[in-house]
Amino acid sequence: MTNPVTTRTEQDTMGSIDVPADRYWGAQTQRSKQNFRIGGERMPDALIRAFGIQKLAAARANAALGNLDADLAKAIEAAAREVADGKLLDHFPLVVWQTGSGTQTNMNANEVIANRACEILGKPMGKRDPVHPNDHVNRGQSSNDSFPAAMHIAAVVEIEENLKPALAHLRSALDAKVKAFADIVKIGRTHMQDAVPLTLGQEFSGYAAQIALGLDRIDDALVRLRKLAQGGTALGTGLNAPKGFDVEFAKQVSTITGLKFETAANKFEALAAHDACVEMSGVLNVLATSLMKIGNDIRLLGSGPRCGLGELVLPANEPGSSIMPGKVNPTQAEALTMVCAQVIGNHVAVTVGGSNGHLDLNVFKPVIIYNLLQSIRLIADASVSFADNCVVGLEADQEKIDHYVEQSLMLVTALAPHIGYDNAAAVAKKAHKDRSSLKEATIALGFLDGAKFDELVRARDMI
Amino acid sequence: MTNPVTTRTEQDTMGSIDVPADRYWGAQTQRSKQNFRIGGERMPDALIRAFGIQKLAAARANAALGNLDADLAKAIEAAAREVADGKLLDHFPLVVWQTGSGTQTNMNANEVIANRACEILGKPMGKRDPVHPNDHVNRGQSSNDSFPAAMHIAAVVEIEENLKPALAHLRSALDAKVKAFADIVKIGRTHMQDAVPLTLGQEFSGYAAQIALGLDRIDDALVRLRKLAQGGTALGTGLNAPKGFDVEFAKQVSTITGLKFETAANKFEALAAHDACVEMSGVLNVLATSLMKIGNDIRLLGSGPRCGLGELVLPANEPGSSIMPGKVNPTQAEALTMVCAQVIGNHVAVTVGGSNGHLDLNVFKPVIIYNLLQSIRLIADASVSFADNCVVGLEADQEKIDHYVEQSLMLVTALAPHIGYDNAAAVAKKAHKDRSSLKEATIALGFLDGAKFDELVRARDMI
Amino acid sequence: MTNPVTTRTEQDTMGSIDVPADRYWGAQTQRSKQNFRIGGERMPDALIRAFGIQKLAAARANAALGNLDADLAKAIEAAAREVADGKLLDHFPLVVWQTGSGTQTNMNANEVIANRACEILGKPMGKRDPVHPNDHVNRGQSSNDSFPAAMHIAAVVEIEENLKPALAHLRSALDAKVKAFADIVKIGRTHMQDAVPLTLGQEFSGYAAQIALGLDRIDDALVRLRKLAQGGTALGTGLNAPKGFDVEFAKQVSTITGLKFETAANKFEALAAHDACVEMSGVLNVLATSLMKIGNDIRLLGSGPRCGLGELVLPANEPGSSIMPGKVNPTQAEALTMVCAQVIGNHVAVTVGGSNGHLDLNVFKPVIIYNLLQSIRLIADASVSFADNCVVGLEADQEKIDHYVEQSLMLVTALAPHIGYDNAAAVAKKAHKDRSSLKEATIALGFLDGAKFDELVRARDMI
Amino acid sequence: MTNPVTTRTEQDTMGSIDVPADRYWGAQTQRSKQNFRIGGERMPDALIRAFGIQKLAAARANAALGNLDADLAKAIEAAAREVADGKLLDHFPLVVWQTGSGTQTNMNANEVIANRACEILGKPMGKRDPVHPNDHVNRGQSSNDSFPAAMHIAAVVEIEENLKPALAHLRSALDAKVKAFADIVKIGRTHMQDAVPLTLGQEFSGYAAQIALGLDRIDDALVRLRKLAQGGTALGTGLNAPKGFDVEFAKQVSTITGLKFETAANKFEALAAHDACVEMSGVLNVLATSLMKIGNDIRLLGSGPRCGLGELVLPANEPGSSIMPGKVNPTQAEALTMVCAQVIGNHVAVTVGGSNGHLDLNVFKPVIIYNLLQSIRLIADASVSFADNCVVGLEADQEKIDHYVEQSLMLVTALAPHIGYDNAAAVAKKAHKDRSSLKEATIALGFLDGAKFDELVRARDMI
Repeated sequence: MTNPVTTRTEQDTMGSIDVPADRYWGAQTQRSKQNFRIGGERMPDALIRAFGIQKLAAARANAALGNLDADLAKAIEAAAREVADGKLLDHFPLVVWQTGSGTQTNMNANEVIANRACEILGKPMGKRDPVHPNDHVNRGQSSNDSFPAAMHIAAVVEIEENLKPALAHLRSALDAKVKAFADIVKIGRTHMQDAVPLTLGQEFSGYAAQIALGLDRIDDALVRLRKLAQGGTALGTGLNAPKGFDVEFAKQVSTITGLKFETAANKFEALAAHDACVEMSGVLNVLATSLMKIGNDIRLLGSGPRCGLGELVLPANEPGSSIMPGKVNPTQAEALTMVCAQVIGNHVAVTVGGSNGHLDLNVFKPVIIYNLLQSIRLIADASVSFADNCVVGLEADQEKIDHYVEQSLMLVTALAPHIGYDNAAAVAKKAHKDRSSLKEATIALGFLDGAKFDELVRARDMI
Repeated sequence: MTNPVTTRTEQDTMGSIDVPADRYWGAQTQRSKQNFRIGGERMPDALIRAFGIQKLAAARANAALGNLDADLAKAIEAAAREVADGKLLDHFPLVVWQTGSGTQTNMNANEVIANRACEILGKPMGKRDPVHPNDHVNRGQSSNDSFPAAMHIAAVVEIEENLKPALAHLRSALDAKVKAFADIVKIGRTHMQDAVPLTLGQEFSGYAAQIALGLDRIDDALVRLRKLAQGGTALGTGLNAPKGFDVEFAKQVSTITGLKFETAANKFEALAAHDACVEMSGVLNVLATSLMKIGNDIRLLGSGPRCGLGELVLPANEPGSSIMPGKVNPTQAEALTMVCAQVIGNHVAVTVGGSNGHLDLNVFKPVIIYNLLQSIRLIADASVSFADNCVVGLEADQEKIDHYVEQSLMLVTALAPHIGYDNAAAVAKKAHKDRSSLKEATIALGFLDGAKFDELVRARDMI
Repeated sequence: MTNPVTTRTEQDTMGSIDVPADRYWGAQTQRSKQNFRIGGERMPDALIRAFGIQKLAAARANAALGNLDADLAKAIEAAAREVADGKLLDHFPLVVWQTGSGTQTNMNANEVIANRACEILGKPMGKRDPVHPNDHVNRGQSSNDSFPAAMHIAAVVEIEENLKPALAHLRSALDAKVKAFADIVKIGRTHMQDAVPLTLGQEFSGYAAQIALGLDRIDDALVRLRKLAQGGTALGTGLNAPKGFDVEFAKQVSTITGLKFETAANKFEALAAHDACVEMSGVLNVLATSLMKIGNDIRLLGSGPRCGLGELVLPANEPGSSIMPGKVNPTQAEALTMVCAQVIGNHVAVTVGGSNGHLDLNVFKPVIIYNLLQSIRLIADASVSFADNCVVGLEADQEKIDHYVEQSLMLVTALAPHIGYDNAAAVAKKAHKDRSSLKEATIALGFLDGAKFDELVRARDMI
Repeated sequence: MTNPVTTRTEQDTMGSIDVPADRYWGAQTQRSKQNFRIGGERMPDALIRAFGIQKLAAARANAALGNLDADLAKAIEAAAREVADGKLLDHFPLVVWQTGSGTQTNMNANEVIANRACEILGKPMGKRDPVHPNDHVNRGQSSNDSFPAAMHIAAVVEIEENLKPALAHLRSALDAKVKAFADIVKIGRTHMQDAVPLTLGQEFSGYAAQIALGLDRIDDALVRLRKLAQGGTALGTGLNAPKGFDVEFAKQVSTITGLKFETAANKFEALAAHDACVEMSGVLNVLATSLMKIGNDIRLLGSGPRCGLGELVLPANEPGSSIMPGKVNPTQAEALTMVCAQVIGNHVAVTVGGSNGHLDLNVFKPVIIYNLLQSIRLIADASVSFADNCVVGLEADQEKIDHYVEQSLMLVTALAPHIGYDNAAAVAKKAHKDRSSLKEATIALGFLDGAKFDELVRARDMI
C-alpha cells in the first residue's frame, strides 16, 4: 500500500488527490492519512464495524422515511453490511490521532461505502455518482452524531458479545472453586498477618462476588450507553435530518444487532459530552480494581513452592525463567494485573478527554473510544485467559493449609468472649514469646483447663 | 492539648499510658496519636459521626439479640448518640494516615464511648469498667467490619443529605435558564469554530441533562453502597457475632438514619475489597467531568467583556484583579473546575487504594473514605455555590448573540440538501474569502436567487 | 469567629462590607469568605507563610528601587515578617476553592499586611491609609505573578526544610539496615516465587538506592522550581513594575530564606503554565512508587508470625486488632502506602490543573499548590514516621531465613553452567515432585556426585 | 500464519511443541502465543530492536570476557544484528500481556537468534545445537536483567533519535513565530477575560519556553534512564555472569548505539523497581500538560472565523465537516490534545505498574515499557505533525487584533500608578456601564485631561 502501482483521482471540496486504485477510500481519507502521521494506532476494528452498522441503519431509516431513493439505499445498505461484517477493514487506514470529532473516519466510511455502492451499481469509483459520500451515504447525518452513535454501538456490542460472557465465564470458574474448596479450613490473613480461620471456598466466594457485582455495574451503566446521539446531526438540533429519524435509526440498530438501543433524550448532551463513556470506563476501572486484588491474592497464596505461603498450587503452563531452571511463575496473574494497570490508566485518559469538551461538541471522541474499547477487550480476554489457564487448574495444598491452621495464634479470638479480650491477648503473647501453643499458654496462665480449651477453640467452628 | 495540665492513666494490652484528663479517649488512641505524626488531615467528621451511628446500632442489635446487658447497652447507646450528633468531635484526634484497617479510629470510638458510658453510669474513666471498649462497646464487632460499615454509612448519609440535594439545586438553576433562554437563537460552535445555530436554552438543556444523568448514576451506585459489612467481624465469617446480628444491625441503621441500608450478601467481599466505594468515586469522577465541561463553557461564553465571545454576562461578585482595576472574572467557574480537578485526582487515589487490598482485608480503608467524602463534599458545596453565585445571575447579551448569528457562514448548511454539499461549500468559501455574506455569495455563484435564499436560510428554522 | 461581637467596615471597589473587628483582613477577603462556602480546606499554612516572604521581599525590592516610601516600606516589612513567621495564620480564613488565580488570597495578604502596617504606624484599620493594600502592599505586583512566586517559595522551602531531611533520615535508617543485614544470606523471590539467594542487606540496599535516587530527582526538579514569576505582573510583560524588580525580588527572597532563588527567564510561561509544579509532583509520584514498593515488601517479609514469610520481625507499636487479641500489624507500612496512594492521586489533580491553563494565565493555581504541598508534607512526615517507628526496629528472624535457604530448589541455578539449563531443570523438577532435596535429585539423575554438588551449590557463594 | 502449511517440532524443558516451519521462534514463544490470547498489542518494535542490541552486546561482552566460544559468538552477533535492524520483526509474535518479567519475549529473542545462528552456521533449526537459546544466547543473562536493559535501551534510543529532534523541531517552529509576531501588540486574556496588552510573539515565547524546558527535563531524567540493569542476572547479585560483564555490556551498548549508557550502580533497585521509567513517564506527563495548553490556546485564538476570537488564522488542511460545507477546524490541535490525554493516562498506567513491584522483581515490566514507548512516539509524532501542519502555517489577523486592543477596558491598568487603583477601577466600571471608551470615562470623571490620558495609556508601551 505504501507504493501502490496504480492510483485513481478522488476529489472533495478542497480539490483532487490521488488514492491507491485498489482501495475504496476517497479524498478526505487520503488527506487525513497524509496530515496525521502520528503513532500506529488505527481506529479499532470494533468501531469500524460499528460504523457499518451505523450507515446501514441510517440508510434504512432514510429509506423508511422517504428521504433516500430506494435503489441508492439498497446499494448503500449492501456496502455498509460489508463494513459491518468486517470485510472491508483494510479500507480504513486512519489512526486515532486525527480530528477530535472523528469526522475523518466518518468520511472514510462515507467514501468507502459510496465507492463500493457505485461499484455494486456498476459505476466507476471516484465520481461521487450516483452515490455521493455526503449527499447520500451521510444523508441526514453529521459526523457529530454519527461518530458518537458508532462509539456507543461499538461499545455496547463488544460488552454484550465479549465482555459479559467473559466475565460470566470467569465467575463460573471461580464459583466452581467455591464449591471445590468449601470444606478446606484455612488460616485467614488480615494486614498480611495471621488471623482467624475461614474456608478457602469462602475466600473464593469473595472473588466471585466481586465479578458478579461487576456484571451488575455493567448492566447499570449500559442503560445510558444504549442511548444514541443519531438524529442530532451537527449540534443536537437535528438540522437536515428528517423528522423521526432518531427514533427510526435506533430501532434499526436494535434490529440489526439484536441488542437494545434507544435514541438519546437530549441530543445536545449526547454530542457535547461523553459522560456515558466515562461512566462505563469507570465501571471497567472498578473491575480492574477487583481483578488486581484477585490476581494479587492468587500470586500470594500460590507463592513458593518452598519459601512462600504455598496454599495454592498453580498450573505450570510454561518454563518460568531463562536462567533459573524448573521455575514456575504465576504468569496468568501477571498478565491479568498488567491489564488492570492499563485499564486504570486508560480510565484517566478517558476522563481527561471527557472533561475537555468545549461548547457544542466534545472533540476527544477518538481517544475516548480507543481507550474504552481497548479496556473492554483487555478485561474480556484476560478474564478468559485467567479463568482457563489459571483458575480452572488451581489446587489446594492441604498439607500446608492444615499446618498453618495448627500453628496460628489467632485462634485465641474464640476465647475472648469467655475470658475477655485482655486475658486472651495475654495468652497469645505468651505463646508467641515462648514459641508454644495456645493451649499450653492458656493452661499455664490458668485461664482454662485443656478440655475446656479444646471445646472452645476449634478452627472448624470459627468459619 | 499539646501540654495538658492534667492527665489520667489509661491502659490496653500493651500497658498503661497517660492521656489528657479532659478527653474521653483511651490508650490506643493515645498510642496512635504518638506513632502517626503524619500530615494534618484528621478523620473526616462525617466518618466520626457515622461511627456514632454504627456503635449505636450495634448496641441496639446486641441488646435486641440478648448479647449485651441492658444497662450497659443503654449507657453505650447514650454515649454513641452523642458521637452521632457530632458533640464529641474534639475527642477524635486521629489522622487519616494510621493503620489501614482504621482499627485505631474504631478503638477511638470504642474508648470514647466506653469512658463516656462509664461516666453516664457514674463511674470513673480509665477503668474499662463497667463498660469495656472491646468487650462491650465493640461487642460482636471487629474493626474489619465496623470500619467498612461506618464508611458506607458516612458516604450514604452525605450523599443523601448533601450531595443529591445540591445537585438537584444546581439542576433547577440550570433548568430555569433553559426556560429563560428558550427563545434566544445563537450560533453554535463545534471544534471551537462557528457552526449552525441553536438556542441558548438548548445549550443549557445539555448541562441540565448532564446533572440529571449524574443523579441517576448516583442512585445506581447507591444500591451497592447501602450494603453493610457489619456482622462479618474479623474476616467475614462472623466469628463472635451473634446469629442474626448482621440483619438486625442494618435494620437499626436504617431506623436511626431514616435511609435504606441492607446487610451485604457476601461479607468476605465487603471486608477484603471496597469496590462499592471505587464505583461511587467513579460516579463522582463522571460528575467532575460534567461540571468541568459546564464550568469551561460558562467561562468561554462569558469571556470578554469586549474581546471575548461575550454571549453571557456573569455576575460580578468581587473585584477580579489586584492590579487591573474593574476586572470581573468567572471565579465561580474557576472554583468549580478546580474542585473537578481534585475529584478526578481523588478518584485515582481511591482506585489505587481499592486495587491494593491483599488477602482477607483491604488496608487502604482510611485513604479511600477520606477521598470519597472529600469528593462528595466538594461537589456538593461547589454545585450550590456555582448555582447561587453564578448560574442564577447569568444573563444573555442579546445584541452580541444576534450579531454572531448574522455573521456566521455556517448557515450555509441549510442549503446543502437543496444545492448539494459541494456547491454549498463553494458558497461558504467564497463568502469567507470575499468577506461577504452568504446570500451575496450564493447569488454571485448563481445557485439561488435572493428570495429563495431567504426562504431557505433562516436561523430560527434551524433549531 | 462565626458570630463576632463587633465588626468594623471595610471597603473595596465594589463598596463597603462588615468584617470581624478582631481580624486584620479586609473587604475582598470577606467577600471571598461569603462567596465560596466550599469544603473546609484552607489555603495551606506553608503558602500563607510564603506570602509573608513574598510581600516582605517585594517591599524591600520596591524600597531598594525607590518605588515605595521608606516609612511605608518599613511598616509593610514588619507586618509581612509576622505573616512569614506564621503569627497571623488566623487572619487567613480563605479556602482553596476560590478564584483560580489565587487573587483573593493575595488580596487577603495585602489587606492583612496593610491593616497591620497601619496599626504599626498608629493608624486605625479599614481606612486603607496610609498603607493601601493595592497601591502599597501590592505595589509593582499582580496576583498573577505574586501567587506563582508564593507557590514556588512555599514548595521550595518545604522541600528543603522538611522533605529532603526526612528522606535523608529514612535513607540513613535503611543504610543502617544494609550494614546490619549484610551477612544474612536469604532466599530471593521473583514473581513472588522462590529464586536464587541474596543477602537481606542487598535487598535493603535496593530500597536505600530508591530513596537516594529520589533525592537526586528532587534536586533536578528544584532547578526549575527555584525560578520565580515575580516581576511579570499581570501578564508577564512587567507592566507597572519598576525595571529590575524581578531580579531584585529574587535576590531578596534568597536572602530572607537562605535558599537559592532566581527570576524566571520567561515570565509568560511562568504565569500561564505551572509545569515546574507538575514536574515536582511527578517526582513525588516516583517517590510514592518507591515507597509503595518498600512498604509492600516490609509487610510481605514481616508477614506471619506463624503463617507468613516471617523473615522480618516488625516492632509492635500498638495492639493490632479490636477483636483478635495479641495481634501485631505492619501499621507503619500501611500508613506509608496510604500516603503513596494519596500522592499518586494528588499528582493527577495537579496534572489536570496544570493542563487546563488557558491563554495568558493558568487559573488552577490554588488546587495545584494545595496538592503539591500536601504531597510534600505527607511524604516527609510518613518517611520519618516509617523510619523511626518501623525501619529502625526491624529485626531479622535468622532461623526462618536459614530454613528457607535450605529448602529452596532454585539453588539449582548454580548447576546450569556446569550441567546445562535443561538438565538443571530436570533436577529441580524431580526434587519438587519427590519433595526431595536438590542434592538427592542430582545424584539420582546421575549428573554429579555429592561432593561435586556440595562444591558447586553454596548459597553463600551465589550472592 | 494462523494455518501454517508446515510445522517443525521445537522443545523446551516442558516438552515438545509444533511451531510454524517458516518462523525462527521456538517452544517457549509458541507456548506464550497459545497461553496468552489477550488483546492485540504486540511488544513494541522499538523494544524488539532493543533486544537485538541487547543480545548483540551480550554476545560481544561474553566473547570479550572469554565466556563464549568465538564461533558461536560470531553467529549470535550476526543474528542479533538482524533483530536490531528490525529485519526479523515478524518472528516476534508475542503480546504485551504475558509474564510480567517479559521472560517470554526474552526467550523469543533467545530462540529466534539461536535458530537463526544455527542456520547461519549451516545447521537445522529446532535442535538447540550448536547454539542453545539459554546456554549460549542468554549466557550470563537472565530475563530479569535483560528485559530491563532492553527497556532502557529502547526508551533512550527512541528519545534520542525521535523525541528530542521532534521537540526541537516544534520549538524551532514556535521560535519562528516568536520572531514573526514580535511586533503584533494584542490584548492579553487572563481568566479568559480581557486584560492588559502583550505581543503575540510574547505569547508564543511562552509556548517555546515550555518546550525548551521540557527538553531540559528529558535530559535530566535521561541520566537515570541510561543506567543498565544487565549483569545483575536473576536477582541483582550477578550469579552466573562473568566478572566485569555489567561494565563491558554497557560499553558495548554505547558503541553499538553511539549513545551513552552505563551500568547501574545498584542492580537490586534496577530489577525490583522501574523508577527511572516512572520518572521519564512523568516528564512526558509534563510535556503533555504543556502541549495540552498550547493546543488549547491555538484553538481558542483561532476560533471563528466570524464568531470567535479569531486572532489567528489556521491553515485549512482538509474539509472540516461532513454536514457543514466549508468548515475548517483546528484538527492538528485536536490530534495533539488527544495525544496529551493518552500520555496522561499512560502515565497512570506506568505509575500503577511501577508501584506494584514485589520483593526482588517488578513484574509489570511489559505494561510499563509499552506505555512509555507509546507516549514517546505519540508526543514525537504529534509534535512534528503539529509543527508542520499547523504552527508553520499560522497567520495573525491584524485587523481583528487591533480592534480588540482599541476596545479593551483593561488598558486602564496603566492609570493605576497615577490616579490610584480605586479611581482607575471607577473609570473602567463607568466605561463598561456606558459602553464608552476609557478616555471618555476618565475625562468625564475628571481624573485626567485627554492629552495626559493619551500620554499614559499606550498599548505599545505596556508590553
